Amino acid sequence: MTAGSAVAASRAFQTFGVSESALDERVGRVIAPEEARISYRASFPKIAVKILVRDVPDRAVARVAALAARVRAELGTAIYGEGEVSMEEMVGEPLRARGAPLAVAESCTGGLIGHRLTDVPGSSAYLLADYVVYSNQAKIDVLGVSPDTLERHGAVSEEVAREMAAGARRRSGASLAIATTGIAGPDGGSAEKPVGTVCFALSAEDQELSCRHQLWGSRDWVKLLASQLALDWARRWALGLPVLESGFRR
Amino acid sequence: MTAGSAVAASRAFQTFGVSESALDERVGRVIAPEEARISYRASFPKIAVKILVRDVPDRAVARVAALAARVRAELGTAIYGEGEVSMEEMVGEPLRARGAPLAVAESCTGGLIGHRLTDVPGSSAYLLADYVVYSNQAKIDVLGVSPDTLERHGAVSEEVAREMAAGARRRSGASLAIATTGIAGPDGGSAEKPVGTVCFALSAEDQELSCRHQLWGSRDWVKLLASQLALDWARRWALGLPVLESGFRR
Repeated sequence: MTAGSAVAASRAFQTFGVSESALDERVGRVIAPEEARISYRASFPKIAVKILVRDVPDRAVARVAALAARVRAELGTAIYGEGEVSMEEMVGEPLRARGAPLAVAESCTGGLIGHRLTDVPGSSAYLLADYVVYSNQAKIDVLGVSPDTLERHGAVSEEVAREMAAGARRRSGASLAIATTGIAGPDGGSAEKPVGTVCFALSAEDQELSCRHQLWGSRDWVKLLASQLALDWARRWALGLPVLESGFRR
Repeated sequence: MTAGSAVAASRAFQTFGVSESALDERVGRVIAPEEARISYRASFPKIAVKILVRDVPDRAVARVAALAARVRAELGTAIYGEGEVSMEEMVGEPLRARGAPLAVAESCTGGLIGHRLTDVPGSSAYLLADYVVYSNQAKIDVLGVSPDTLERHGAVSEEVAREMAAGARRRSGASLAIATTGIAGPDGGSAEKPVGTVCFALSAEDQELSCRHQLWGSRDWVKLLASQLALDWARRWALGLPVLESGFRR
């Protein structure tokens, strides 16, 4: 092979929920250093994994395809898309395919989930409504969250997140609803529920789920990370994947 | 004055609703070219106007203050803040001072207004709820928009915007509600209502207003510009300023 005949062929995957060091360790299990150049581009909360090989034209494409298949098998559902795609772009297609319209209930993310979903042209085909219920009273009035649940568990609780999701689904007639409630900061934290505590819930005909995560960083970062995780839940549900495996751990 | 003794003193205003060329023309009426260096930094939809003078320390500050006062008088309510502030940061303070909580109803902006408002720490003190009613059915069910109004005028109409704002205010118990409904594109436009058509409405105890604007640009740009205008309406109402004077014309 002469230098002149070599071309570069590459494939890139977008991932969420695995740290860069863990990605590198896992990719290292399936690709030897001499097989390809692997690079990571973190524009949190997503990390792109790029596989690049140099070879004569016909071999380059075949080699990178084989390596991409190994990476895809290894990383599994942590990969949410290939190429320059955003998480919100990957939510609509499977929802549309399932004929399953979506509703959202947001507290700490404050509209960011709806904003991201509606950045995608055509999102009106699957997004019915987004209820940003910032105050406790709005949670009660708009989504039918029980005052007793709020009193007993606090606004930032899995219980309230579940009632928000269930209320959003019921009131909109959607097949799927996702909900967030948390403490974006910088104030409002406590020893029991520090800044970055976010509770997520999903309500669908086939399942109701909730989970509490301890996120980190500044206010806008907590919002962004929480929105990413909620969108990933919707994507996973629409694709029939395990939902609770999603999530970014440090 | 020796070069060594001169210092630079500057003031910067954030503006919305006046084009850069119109800003330059108006600032030129009150500041002569030799009095200061004027620069504009457009990070649409806002444009910052910066006034810079060089003089000995005590004179520099006094001179720039006098020039800033002239610019403030000339540009009036097109200035929404001084220094590095965002529109959303300027909405909360006057609402809080008036004891007037806010609700939002969004269609084409899709949650962006709520997202921007909740980027400001402490926004839970004045934001009650944001109803992102993307589908017609959600407009009806969530905000009580009349099916007849939707049928007669279409979802993108001042009539629907007004019913959205009124519904958001009534259902949340807020003092003020702002609403957007429009066509962010790239699809969905018509000869009568091209892409970029956005209707705005405001509902408060003292007034109900609506206006149709023809915005321009890509989907995310239409969303951003519409959110900016809606936030400016809230700011103007909270400050007791004329609301309908807001708006960016090319």
